[in-house]
Amino acid sequence: MDTELRINFERLKQNLDDLSNIGREKDHGIYRMAFSKGDMQARRWLSEQIESAGLSLHQDGAANLGARLNWSDEQPVVMTGSHIDTVPGAGHLDGALGVICGLEALRVLHERKVPLSHPVEMVAFSDEEGRFGGLLGSQSLCGLLTPEAILAAEDLEGVRLTDAMQQQGLSAMEALSAQRDPGSIKAFLELHIEQGPVLDRQGIQIGAVDAITGLFKWNVRLIGAANHAGTTPMEMRQDAFQGLAEFAGQIDRVLEEHGSPRSRTTIGRVELFPGAANVVPGTAEFSLEVRDTDQQILEALADAYRRALSAIARRRDLMFEFEVLSTIEPIQCHSSVISAVESSARALDLKSLRMPSGAVHDTQIMASMAPAGMIFVPSKEGRSHSPAEWTAWKDIEAGANTLLNALVRLAN
Amino acid sequence: MDTELRINFERLKQNLDDLSNIGREKDHGIYRMAFSKGDMQARRWLSEQIESAGLSLHQDGAANLGARLNWSDEQPVVMTGSHIDTVPGAGHLDGALGVICGLEALRVLHERKVPLSHPVEMVAFSDEEGRFGGLLGSQSLCGLLTPEAILAAEDLEGVRLTDAMQQQGLSAMEALSAQRDPGSIKAFLELHIEQGPVLDRQGIQIGAVDAITGLFKWNVRLIGAANHAGTTPMEMRQDAFQGLAEFAGQIDRVLEEHGSPRSRTTIGRVELFPGAANVVPGTAEFSLEVRDTDQQILEALADAYRRALSAIARRRDLMFEFEVLSTIEPIQCHSSVISAVESSARALDLKSLRMPSGAVHDTQIMASMAPAGMIFVPSKEGRSHSPAEWTAWKDIEAGANTLLNALVRLAN
Repeated sequence: MDTELRINFERLKQNLDDLSNIGREKDHGIYRMAFSKGDMQARRWLSEQIESAGLSLHQDGAANLGARLNWSDEQPVVMTGSHIDTVPGAGHLDGALGVICGLEALRVLHERKVPLSHPVEMVAFSDEEGRFGGLLGSQSLCGLLTPEAILAAEDLEGVRLTDAMQQQGLSAMEALSAQRDPGSIKAFLELHIEQGPVLDRQGIQIGAVDAITGLFKWNVRLIGAANHAGTTPMEMRQDAFQGLAEFAGQIDRVLEEHGSPRSRTTIGRVELFPGAANVVPGTAEFSLEVRDTDQQILEALADAYRRALSAIARRRDLMFEFEVLSTIEPIQCHSSVISAVESSARALDLKSLRMPSGAVHDTQIMASMAPAGMIFVPSKEGRSHSPAEWTAWKDIEAGANTLLNALVRLAN
Repeated sequence: MDTELRINFERLKQNLDDLSNIGREKDHGIYRMAFSKGDMQARRWLSEQIESAGLSLHQDGAANLGARLNWSDEQPVVMTGSHIDTVPGAGHLDGALGVICGLEALRVLHERKVPLSHPVEMVAFSDEEGRFGGLLGSQSLCGLLTPEAILAAEDLEGVRLTDAMQQQGLSAMEALSAQRDPGSIKAFLELHIEQGPVLDRQGIQIGAVDAITGLFKWNVRLIGAANHAGTTPMEMRQDAFQGLAEFAGQIDRVLEEHGSPRSRTTIGRVELFPGAANVVPGTAEFSLEVRDTDQQILEALADAYRRALSAIARRRDLMFEFEVLSTIEPIQCHSSVISAVESSARALDLKSLRMPSGAVHDTQIMASMAPAGMIFVPSKEGRSHSPAEWTAWKDIEAGANTLLNALVRLAN
């Protein structure tokens, strides 16, 4: 028998089931958008769990909810966490898994009186999913929020963050006080479902995340001439959609020439104008979203796509313009955290795979102030953000045990 | 000097200018949708012109407005005509040109007492442009309307044809009485702007239309899987838009292999689902509109596009389905009418080009009961259905003179 610790699986399972019933509606989806009724109910439930476990409960100005073990202001803390807020109609694991497994890890460390050189803390971050923009809790903790951003934040229905928090007896401006001191966090480790198909397809239980992809997102317009589909011969057209189709056909080539196996390029939104079956499209407007874990590769891809679009536009007598909608720099995970995850998986006799995270997580923010990393567990068929989200219980157990032992390694 | 007749150009120009001011609004567009205020005002104006020219005015049950010369119930008539109703925001020539030039031709024939073996008639057809579905007048005349169709017809605002006509003192059901006897029309010839760029680019004044294109219009769906754009590696995607882009890239090949120089294929409408920048498109729905003047070629193209879509769907692990939204069979113009147009152009020393009509016209309907044909004049840059619609006055004069002399040839 190895010397690794084990979580209490039945308790973990019960906790996940209990939390999954909070905010669940008739369509089987979970609705715990930040500071909604469901979110507040889940916060109360989590607080009770923390207190009844004998851990110390800590809520900061951003309403991040923490469970602390061996807390000391003098000692850098080893932190784990995720979020319990959800998108509308969510599954039961996105965010919740990391919080419940983090809590379970602290319970085991507490019960067994495991010797640790550093305090350990589990944090459930506020509004990760983005009702008010997303990553609110981790940004507060890292000192990345401004008063202007807090005052401007509102949800899709126009409800302001300040009002939504006030309704729950919270003051949004207090989020500024949640900032931690530099050096106060020894390491941050988040357990999360992969939300992609890689581990599931390869039958591997543990993903040791080594980087979180950056991205750029453009809004691109190709502009030709809208003409009658019957009266305009093929060779006299300036068909903006044909320009887009040609560009889409070059994405694989550009990725092969300039990308990495981690590169992704997606055209997810397309609008044609005027958009009628009997009119040659005069304008094609579309999103181009490109991800990689290497900033230099992202820049090379941006150049290559710009060149491809220019050449197509020139040849087809189209105009080409684009706006940059957003750019996010990729984040490298810290070797100390990756190594703690891999050592723990190995000691537990679990197969692990180094892999990037293609999605955004609080870890991306936390990496700005602490050595950070993530553990992924398989998502059945990559499904997420829907009630069909699923991870096998044995994979959850494997992930939770890996988290527990990695925290021990990091806290010693 | 040739022996061909000439229209009175100043009078023609004045008529076109006068009619263009009826229904014109502040955006410079003309609004004479069928049975609207503008349309009714134009009908009154046209009736006065017909009567003051000494021609006999005839309005049938479909409210088609006719000018008749040498009318006799015994003799098959040589008919010309077009329409004075417009799309919303129209230019001044679409339809109006054929009516005014037809009227001018009859005036000249009447004034000069040109000897003719057959009566000649100019008809302004009701609702060509489609406020209530389109081609109402010509369909009535050819006996293609049913009582059900009349009762069901309504405009985009839900106004019924029956109510719109009743408001103008007209009975829609009377349209059924407008049907002409088989054999009562010796020939039908419509002068119209090309609404395409061919004559303008080639600097040719007269298009001798030899066929009107048929078409098929499909609504096509490619269905893959909507996945997270960050977490789904390129090789694990079932990207419906990439399937569409590949198909669009094959259109030129399919036209080269199975089409004719008259073939057109247009993807004018595209919708992606869910349609977000950060989601791999699970479904791509698009219109495929294909035109040619040869029914066999249309069928070959339909087969080829179906095969191409099936192969792409199979290779990319997509589902593929489509509905046929509409099919229209191509119409061949009658050699007697084409020859009358070409002889007249030649005698007038005008260059002419045999060409198809890519757009729908009343001629398409009239061809079902009479030898039919069309004359096209150049559209500046192919523009139409907008106030930017323009044909040079010298081209209008050339077209009107060709029409006049072709009618003489057909009526003798």
